[in-house]
Order: sequence, then C-alpha cells, then structure tokens
Amino acid sequence: MTTPTKTEMIAEGKAKKIYATTDPTKLIFHFKDDATAFNAQKKGTIESKGMLNQRISARLFTMLKAKGIDNHYVATLSDREMLVERLEIIPVETILRNLITGSCGKRLARPEGEEIPHPIIEFSYKSDALGDPLINDDHAIAFGWATAAELAEIRKQTYAVNNFLKAFMAERGILLVDFKLEFGRTPEGRVLLADEICPDTCRFWDAATKKKLDKDRFRQDLGEVSEAYVEIDRRTAM
Amino acid sequence: MTTPTKTEMIAEGKAKKIYATTDPTKLIFHFKDDATAFNAQKKGTIESKGMLNQRISARLFTMLKAKGIDNHYVATLSDREMLVERLEIIPVETILRNLITGSCGKRLARPEGEEIPHPIIEFSYKSDALGDPLINDDHAIAFGWATAAELAEIRKQTYAVNNFLKAFMAERGILLVDFKLEFGRTPEGRVLLADEICPDTCRFWDAATKKKLDKDRFRQDLGEVSEAYVEIDRRTAM
Repeated sequence: MTTPTKTEMIAEGKAKKIYATTDPTKLIFHFKDDATAFNAQKKGTIESKGMLNQRISARLFTMLKAKGIDNHYVATLSDREMLVERLEIIPVETILRNLITGSCGKRLARPEGEEIPHPIIEFSYKSDALGDPLINDDHAIAFGWATAAELAEIRKQTYAVNNFLKAFMAERGILLVDFKLEFGRTPEGRVLLADEICPDTCRFWDAATKKKLDKDRFRQDLGEVSEAYVEIDRRTAM
Repeated sequence: MTTPTKTEMIAEGKAKKIYATTDPTKLIFHFKDDATAFNAQKKGTIESKGMLNQRISARLFTMLKAKGIDNHYVATLSDREMLVERLEIIPVETILRNLITGSCGKRLARPEGEEIPHPIIEFSYKSDALGDPLINDDHAIAFGWATAAELAEIRKQTYAVNNFLKAFMAERGILLVDFKLEFGRTPEGRVLLADEICPDTCRFWDAATKKKLDKDRFRQDLGEVSEAYVEIDRRTAM
C-alpha cells in the first residue's frame, strides 16, 4: 500500500492545517508553530512547537493504542506531518481536570491547584465563534451534537486516557493537571479519540517544582515557552 | 400551636427578606417589589410584585404538595409573608428548559424559541458574586455542593414539577418556557423543594400570542410589567 499524499487543504485551525489525501479514509495534519490563547485574542509563535507537538502526540497516541485505547493516529510522515483516520468530528470538547486551575478555578472561585476527590469532566461546545462554551449532557443530546451513548463512551475513554497518562507522566516527574480531548465517529459509527495530545492541550507541571511545562507559559508570558515543549518531548521519550 | 412570629432578619436577597422566627424550624419570607436583572446590573421595582409572587407561589406550592411533590411551603401569613420550613439551602440552582430562550440561546447560538425533543436541565452554582455560573454534576460533587444522590433527587423532582406545571399552565393558555428551582435539605437530610415559583423565576408565554408574561418584560423593557404578574395571578386562580 502506498502512503497517501496531500490533496487540498480542508481546514486551518489555530495550531494545525488539515489536508485531504489521496486516500478518502485518511487526513494529513500539518502542525504549525502558531500559538493562540484566550479564544485567539492573544497570538504568537512558539519556535519548533509544530515539530514537538507532532512528535509528542505521535508518541502518546502510539502508547495509548498499545494500551488498548484506540485513536486516529496512523503514522508520522515528516517532522510536522501526521497521517490520521478521517473522522466525523463530534463538536463536543472534553476536558478532564485532576487539579483545579485556569478558567474553571476563576469561574467558580476555587483556589489555584485545589485537589479534588475525583477528576472532573467538562464538556464544551466546539465553537471558536462562541468561545467553546461549557455545556452539559442535556445540551449535547438536545442539539444533536452527541448521543447519550456517545457521551458515555467519551467519558469512559477519557478516564482511560487519564489513568494511563497520569501514571506515565508521574513516572517522569510530571503532574498531569488537566487536558482536553476531541473525539470523532468512524464510518462505522465508533467513537474514536482524535486531535492531538501535547503541551498545547494538556497542563503539565513539574512534580517537584510545580513549574508549568505547557502552553500556560505562553498564555501567562512566563518565558522559556519553547523550552517547556522541548522538556516534555525529552521526558516523554524516556 | 401558635403561629411563629418574626425575630431577626437573617438574609436579604434580590426579591425577598428572610427572617428567623420564634420556631427554630421555620422561616418567614417577605416578598419585595424590588426587581433586578442581568446579575443586578439593572434594578427597579414592579408594583405589587411581592404580593402577587407570594400569592402565586403559595398557590402553586399548595397544588404541588397535593400532587405529592412536597415543598417548604407551610402557610401564608399576610399579603407579602409566607411561612416556610427552615432548610439548609443546597447552593445549586436548577433550571429546566422546555423551549430555548434567554442566556442559553445566546451562549449556544440557538434560535429563539427553538423546540427541543426533551427538556434540558441545567445546574448553576448559586453565587451572586460569580453570576450563578453554569456547572455540571462533577463540579457540584467535587466541591461538596451536593451529592450525586441529591442531584438525582433534584432531577427527579424537577421533572415532576415540570410535568405538573406545564400541563396546569397549558390548560390556562400559558406556555411554560423554562423555570428555576432551588432545593434545601431538611434536618433529616431529605431534599425538599424551596424558594418561590412565580413570574420572577419562570418564563410564561401566552400560548396563543406568545406574549411574555414574566420578568422578561422588565429585563427587556417591554412595558406592562406589573400587568403580566396580575395576569399570571388571574390565570393560575382559574
């Protein structure tokens, strides 16, 4: 089987360009260095981010697949290019929080870094125009964004990702604070993990020093932004 | 048994003053004419509102109790005063939407008056300072605001209120668009319906003309505000 090649660009997101390919069942993700925050009110670039995020995501997706958590990753085609399954994306973003920080803490006046007895899962409606507003299961079902069975499957897979990734990162001295996942439907209607898993979409803190090693360094102008991505690449390669 | 009388005021909300009484298991609600909207950015008064809301709430609570939906209502003491059970209020507000309007429609870009296949229940964290932010079950449980069992009981009672109230209002030519409920815990830990049920907390539309007969007339400067409350009082007395 020959490797599919890019045809037309079908979407350009904040961090990726997405291409159709010569295989109608596959897409190619091109990872950019562009960074945005606060619903694109803040823009910039992070040196080598695209390359690092492709590499980290590919590594984590491969390990998740080996642990029985299937996902859309097929192959890495170049430093910045990933071949993935073409899915119908479910317009519900899933956030899992192990510790309280960021927008959740601010909205609900909870102390930064608060520990909670059980992870919190939040769903938001995937819409840049609306700022990815928080929703609950009833909204997703009523508006036809996902079925109750799909939401149950998304929760199950999200907990499974957390169980693997939290332990994997802990062994490497990293606290998995929270992360965002996206899911799609296969042509057969199966819910499959998609998008990327990297310092753009996860909050990673050094377990010893609590130093942030993720996009919060860009959001909060903390400096050493690219270095944080390099550090996550290095530690996940261990 | 003598009727309890007011002792000290223990809280003053946007629409009510709440008094302790000579009976430690009871409170007295005093219904005010004050009206606020948009998290108290807009303020005003609606003539006779306190009297009308006490009367409408008392009537609906009494009917709900007769239908097996228990609640905190004990007795009406005067035009504006209601004797209620003293509860530990659960800091989670419950909204049930039969049609999409208001903040939900705006946040999620859904058309005004959209019909949905099944009512949506939303929970928000009861906090004026934070603007009653939307939450989900995981937040309420993680932060100790309610248990999973309490949330299940709240959902069950909210659907029961909707089933009764939607049919009751429909027979009177009124569409029950959405409503907000609050619940408390009895000393025995039972979840009991509390607060008030009136045009401040429900959206009522005339079924034939779709004319708004609720606090949206105040929020949106539609005029005939007090008249809408009088009309709901009149129709619920039929």
